[in-house]
Amino acid sequence: MTTERAKMTAGEAFNQFDPELIKRRLLVRQQLQTINNTPDNEKRNALVKELLAATGPEFFVETDLQFDYGFNIYIGNNFFGNYHLTLLDSCPIRIGQNCYIGPNCGLYTNIHPLNARDRIHDVELGAPITIGDNAWLGGGVTILPGVTLGQNVVVGAGAVVTKSFGDDVVLAGNPARVLKTIDNHDLTER
Amino acid sequence: MTTERAKMTAGEAFNQFDPELIKRRLLVRQQLQTINNTPDNEKRNALVKELLAATGPEFFVETDLQFDYGFNIYIGNNFFGNYHLTLLDSCPIRIGQNCYIGPNCGLYTNIHPLNARDRIHDVELGAPITIGDNAWLGGGVTILPGVTLGQNVVVGAGAVVTKSFGDDVVLAGNPARVLKTIDNHDLTER
Amino acid sequence: MTTERAKMTAGEAFNQFDPELIKRRLLVRQQLQTINNTPDNEKRNALVKELLAATGPEFFVETDLQFDYGFNIYIGNNFFGNYHLTLLDSCPIRIGQNCYIGPNCGLYTNIHPLNARDRIHDVELGAPITIGDNAWLGGGVTILPGVTLGQNVVVGAGAVVTKSFGDDVVLAGNPARVLKTIDNHDLTER
Repeated sequence: MTTERAKMTAGEAFNQFDPELIKRRLLVRQQLQTINNTPDNEKRNALVKELLAATGPEFFVETDLQFDYGFNIYIGNNFFGNYHLTLLDSCPIRIGQNCYIGPNCGLYTNIHPLNARDRIHDVELGAPITIGDNAWLGGGVTILPGVTLGQNVVVGAGAVVTKSFGDDVVLAGNPARVLKTIDNHDLTER
Repeated sequence: MTTERAKMTAGEAFNQFDPELIKRRLLVRQQLQTINNTPDNEKRNALVKELLAATGPEFFVETDLQFDYGFNIYIGNNFFGNYHLTLLDSCPIRIGQNCYIGPNCGLYTNIHPLNARDRIHDVELGAPITIGDNAWLGGGVTILPGVTLGQNVVVGAGAVVTKSFGDDVVLAGNPARVLKTIDNHDLTER
Repeated sequence: MTTERAKMTAGEAFNQFDPELIKRRLLVRQQLQTINNTPDNEKRNALVKELLAATGPEFFVETDLQFDYGFNIYIGNNFFGNYHLTLLDSCPIRIGQNCYIGPNCGLYTNIHPLNARDRIHDVELGAPITIGDNAWLGGGVTILPGVTLGQNVVVGAGAVVTKSFGDDVVLAGNPARVLKTIDNHDLTER
């Protein structure tokens, strides 16, 4: 039997009022209240790690963090997330290694239908977000559902990323476009 | 006698240091502190409803909510507002039925004069915002003073809406433009 | 001997794990937790002023304030900062007199290298931000490292300011461009 959680994670229409999902959202909300009132970095980071699907040993997030479930968030080692990071994770959010995310960024996997009838009858959809290794998202960046970014991508502050891009590019604007390419031939493993 | 509250609500120059307005802003700030530290959905929603001019029985807002007064906020039934919704409500903000607002959106009715002399002498103005039924605002959307949106409007994540638009459109960009129109001929009452 | 704090403030590569800087960031984070849970305006403003390099007697900030250090933030008299102001102040942020900042604005002086190898080895750089007198930043404005704005500048809601501009202009868009110029010939001292 397919659970509502499994349907949601697959991006298929699901019942947001499913008891398992409601219970999880409430747990996360309660924990985030504690997390966002914990100035001690080690304690705060440890509490966040407990809620996420995968994190590495080097993991740091500032306060004002928000996400819905946590079980769909996979983050590589050496992660830094600045103030007020919002992760809408009805579908998987996968972030590679050595990624730095500036303040006030939002990664949103949730989709509502454009058709009003379907939307107001609470059809909920989604699409995963994947960010490659060594990304830097500047402050105030928005990433839309279904976006995949390659390796070593830099997203300029305030950019709205509406589609996928490959490796070694600087993106900027709304919608985000390639501003320039980056020479990363000197990149070796960290 | 016209009160400062009435002048403010009408979009006319008003005295922001009026005792009635100061008292209200302080009450709202105190209540929002409680509201934003209440993970229990029923309790939080009930506390918010007490401060708003109108809401329906189906009403849900996440935490990190901010508004100035509440008495100028009118929200139709079946409302969902996600994390960190900011409503600057010196003038009326009217939101129709079945509206869903993504995280980190801001609806701002406040206007300062462009002329520096007037502005630094604290001339405060404003213009109302009206959102029709069945709207969906994606994450990180900004709505400027004076904007009216029609029925069934979808605003793409990160859009900055600087002017009014009619029914059945998808808006995106900064400034927001019509990306496409939506066929809602199958729409019936919810 | 040059301290890490001095290097950081000068925009040069510095060690973010320097004990003095870590200690300061922790103090600021702890104080901001108190500040952002203080609805009383006088108390909140007084606590913020203690952490900043310079402020005037007329100083008001709303809650949800975030900054890293405070010792690099210089703000002129008659300042109003609305909800959720984010100031990344590894380098100096200088704001003139009579400046009003709307909700959800971010001024970011921090720079990471575009080159992935340097970035993931934690090379941190920066560039100062300077805002002239009588500025008004609308809601959701983003200001990038190195930007200088002249006198009497108005920045439209949602704008992303990526370069410097002179006096008496209205900016808007992403990237921000001059929308119009303002006649401020009637401006006299406040």
